[in-house]
Amino acid sequence: MKFEEKTISSEEIFKGKIFTVKKDTVKLPDNSEASREVVTHHGGAGIIAVDDDRNILLVRQYRKGVEREVLEIPAGKLEKNEDPKKCCERELLEETGYAAGTITDLGKIYPTPAYCSEIIHIYMATDLIKKEQKLDSGEFLEVISVKLDKAYDMVLSNRICDAKTVVAVLKAKQLIDG
Amino acid sequence: MKFEEKTISSEEIFKGKIFTVKKDTVKLPDNSEASREVVTHHGGAGIIAVDDDRNILLVRQYRKGVEREVLEIPAGKLEKNEDPKKCCERELLEETGYAAGTITDLGKIYPTPAYCSEIIHIYMATDLIKKEQKLDSGEFLEVISVKLDKAYDMVLSNRICDAKTVVAVLKAKQLIDG
Repeated sequence: MKFEEKTISSEEIFKGKIFTVKKDTVKLPDNSEASREVVTHHGGAGIIAVDDDRNILLVRQYRKGVEREVLEIPAGKLEKNEDPKKCCERELLEETGYAAGTITDLGKIYPTPAYCSEIIHIYMATDLIKKEQKLDSGEFLEVISVKLDKAYDMVLSNRICDAKTVVAVLKAKQLIDG
Repeated sequence: MKFEEKTISSEEIFKGKIFTVKKDTVKLPDNSEASREVVTHHGGAGIIAVDDDRNILLVRQYRKGVEREVLEIPAGKLEKNEDPKKCCERELLEETGYAAGTITDLGKIYPTPAYCSEIIHIYMATDLIKKEQKLDSGEFLEVISVKLDKAYDMVLSNRICDAKTVVAVLKAKQLIDG
């Protein structure tokens, strides 16, 4: 990597429950030094569940980062070294009460690679099996079902803005419709 | 908003150059209290420049968050209250040396709305006008030109993973090809 920034020193600034913040000093390709603020996060996984009638499941919940309710695919934060597929199967079941008969990998995204280590893995669930929703205490959300084509329109008209959900809807539609 | 989390108190943990970290106490819909860690960021803007031969411009640079080189559309961080369109026109010119004759709004994304306030605004530039690249000192990057259809394949095969770039390529292709 010809542009690599080699870390010379690293200082932990904040260790939270969701993320850690560190301040690194790096050596740039021209050998000068620079400072980098980085949010460290174990990563996440999200899953777009599509039923046999082309309905998808979305979760509406309040998101403190953007201080508003956001429509998202079921998703969760990975425990350290957790398998992202297992993580999102668990979240799908807990949040919506559905299990996936078939899971397809839709790739990964770096939400903000400049300053945050988070990688979000995205999957598609099909051949859904109805089981039972099991919300954690303190988790307030509403599950809604919309047609994939309507979700696609909602992405294009900015009513769905969550990055992993935008990517999941666009890729799932591409995969299903070709 | 029926799931709103009302902020009761807020404590600033870290004030950096790129982002600020705060720890808020919130009241949940059932009146219980919870703690929220939030990264505050002024937001960003990215622009996918498409020339008359369906080539797009991508920038390869090292990204400390994910500790690797990442292919991205030209983009920048907003100054407080800055117009995102002006921001990405400036970044496009500085990083690639091109000005946009026409700019189309491709919407916005929330990269990680659960814990980060950042909103990224995405635009498409067409009718490009060649001017001069003006990199900031300490900015090391390579500009590459690829066909829109190749970039689309790179999104589907996980070679383009940056969230704003994935969304820009998928939406630009949809807009141009219908």
